[in-house]
Amino acid sequence: MNFTHETLPQRVVFAASSAAEAVAAEVAALKCSRVMLIASGREAGLVDPIAKKLPVVLRHEDVVMHVPVEVAVRAREAAETSGADVLVSVGGGSTTGLAKAVAMTTGLPIIAVPTTYAGSEATSVWGLTEGETKTTGVDNKVLPASIVYDASLLTSLPGKMTVASGLNAMAHCVDSMWGPRSDPIDRALAQEGIRGLAEGLPVVAADPASMAGIEQTLYGAYLAAVAFASAGSGMHHKICHVLGGMFNLPHAQTHAVVLPYVLAFNSPNAADADVRIATAFGSPTATAGLAALRKTLDAPRALKDFGMPESGIEKAVAPLLRAIPVNNPTPVTHENVTALLRAAWEGSEPA
Amino acid sequence: MNFTHETLPQRVVFAASSAAEAVAAEVAALKCSRVMLIASGREAGLVDPIAKKLPVVLRHEDVVMHVPVEVAVRAREAAETSGADVLVSVGGGSTTGLAKAVAMTTGLPIIAVPTTYAGSEATSVWGLTEGETKTTGVDNKVLPASIVYDASLLTSLPGKMTVASGLNAMAHCVDSMWGPRSDPIDRALAQEGIRGLAEGLPVVAADPASMAGIEQTLYGAYLAAVAFASAGSGMHHKICHVLGGMFNLPHAQTHAVVLPYVLAFNSPNAADADVRIATAFGSPTATAGLAALRKTLDAPRALKDFGMPESGIEKAVAPLLRAIPVNNPTPVTHENVTALLRAAWEGSEPA
Repeated sequence: MNFTHETLPQRVVFAASSAAEAVAAEVAALKCSRVMLIASGREAGLVDPIAKKLPVVLRHEDVVMHVPVEVAVRAREAAETSGADVLVSVGGGSTTGLAKAVAMTTGLPIIAVPTTYAGSEATSVWGLTEGETKTTGVDNKVLPASIVYDASLLTSLPGKMTVASGLNAMAHCVDSMWGPRSDPIDRALAQEGIRGLAEGLPVVAADPASMAGIEQTLYGAYLAAVAFASAGSGMHHKICHVLGGMFNLPHAQTHAVVLPYVLAFNSPNAADADVRIATAFGSPTATAGLAALRKTLDAPRALKDFGMPESGIEKAVAPLLRAIPVNNPTPVTHENVTALLRAAWEGSEPA
Repeated sequence: MNFTHETLPQRVVFAASSAAEAVAAEVAALKCSRVMLIASGREAGLVDPIAKKLPVVLRHEDVVMHVPVEVAVRAREAAETSGADVLVSVGGGSTTGLAKAVAMTTGLPIIAVPTTYAGSEATSVWGLTEGETKTTGVDNKVLPASIVYDASLLTSLPGKMTVASGLNAMAHCVDSMWGPRSDPIDRALAQEGIRGLAEGLPVVAADPASMAGIEQTLYGAYLAAVAFASAGSGMHHKICHVLGGMFNLPHAQTHAVVLPYVLAFNSPNAADADVRIATAFGSPTATAGLAALRKTLDAPRALKDFGMPESGIEKAVAPLLRAIPVNNPTPVTHENVTALLRAAWEGSEPA
């Protein structure tokens, strides 16, 4: 047992149907009184009730996907001019991302109010896009001081999107079991995240407006982000990143398809992970637990259905052998990675 | 699901047989260069190798149990005079406590190197004693910036002391399941703590020098402290506090005796806690898991063996009814608390 685990400071508030009051309380707890409220104009229906309870000095609606640099610069200038002393972001990953871009240069604290399951609110990772190029980095200054999770803000998300997003969070949990910096604390948090997701996702898939299902899914996605940020990208995320970049595959579906193959590949050589994942699913084995959940959710099964050519299998192997962390539980070879990719391409039973 | 969970910032380093190198790395990571090393003279054998690797400007050996105010004042003055920029404490709860007393007024960061399973290194709680009176408080300034756990520093602890201390940590975990501020994150951390303690304690009881056993016990005791500091004192700790104060009972033994009775009392009305504790023990029920561990460890069984008079049962009930948190899973009555105390006094089967 040799590891270093860094726990980052953050307050997390679960406040069903009372985001407005909870955010106001967090602003007060930070002893702040001048709010820059960052939220896309499209979210006005969700944001207005929150805005009403806050000392807003600036409402900033100029939110763009992937945080283009020029959008970040405008937001930073607006923050400086407004004299805001706290940022409140209400929205998905791009909105949180814009708040992080502002925090990076101004040092202002963030109170994040997520309206998706992206998880960015629980990490110190920032991202900015310049033209086609996305730059990411880690800076503890951008970690939101508080998160307010209010399930009622997610009741209008379509069930399909929740499932895709939830399986993405599940992939964060599973990959945290063997990421390059994975330690027992990461694995315990990921285990608890899997438990929440396994409980919440089937409920939300059946009834996208279920508050109880959304809460469990939010809780699982939060822990997924905390664990993954600490453990780092493992085999699963390396595969999805390489395939996504090479063949322009859809993000969520790629994750959903690849995950069971990576789990089946690693679990025979990752006893601690196997027990934790199985326990979290309440299932005899990790692979059986994930398979049952995927069946319930009718998750996508084959990469060939999303535009990956068969010839891509051979093409992806070499970059994958370079990208997969050396501490991966099952040592990777040209043969076993090829077999994994072929199975995921075809959608055959993971083994 | 309505809760607020505050995660506090801390680095935790598990560094078996390499505390000296790990502490030096933490000093460097904090960009510090003037160490005040706080450790009792009795610990010199453990401390000297660590001291050798550090830029020590002051070695402070004036450590006294329970941190008397005058001892704290002397240490604070010594810190100011020395120009130290970081405190390194090597020792048990009183040593960590003295470092906290210095941090409280100087704001210096602490690197704590525990040589017992006390857990104080993982909390923001400080304590000072003036005459007979102990004052405690919470201040995030006193939370150590880093902890370095090195199992080799605990190999000479007697097995009996480890078991007592480990069962104390177990009580922190169990009581975190229903403490006044208990939330799912506390319960997940406590569950992982129970897992570590249940794995480590039998090993250490059989071989007090087992590095693997000590590591698991340290890991469990660390998570116990984190969970308990967040969840707050539940029924178990209220009972031990009231009985200990009234009848001057020994701390560790009182905890060891009372715990199974509180667990049996609450678990029928705490389904989440019951599942988590059972899962952590790998046992069909929470009570069966704790009973099996206690049997392996030959834990003490009856309060009458430690000086509590039979007449004390009736005397303790009223203060307990006032002290036990209102959110306790099983509502307390004069009758059921009396029955619990009588069973714990006699050492009869918990039910």
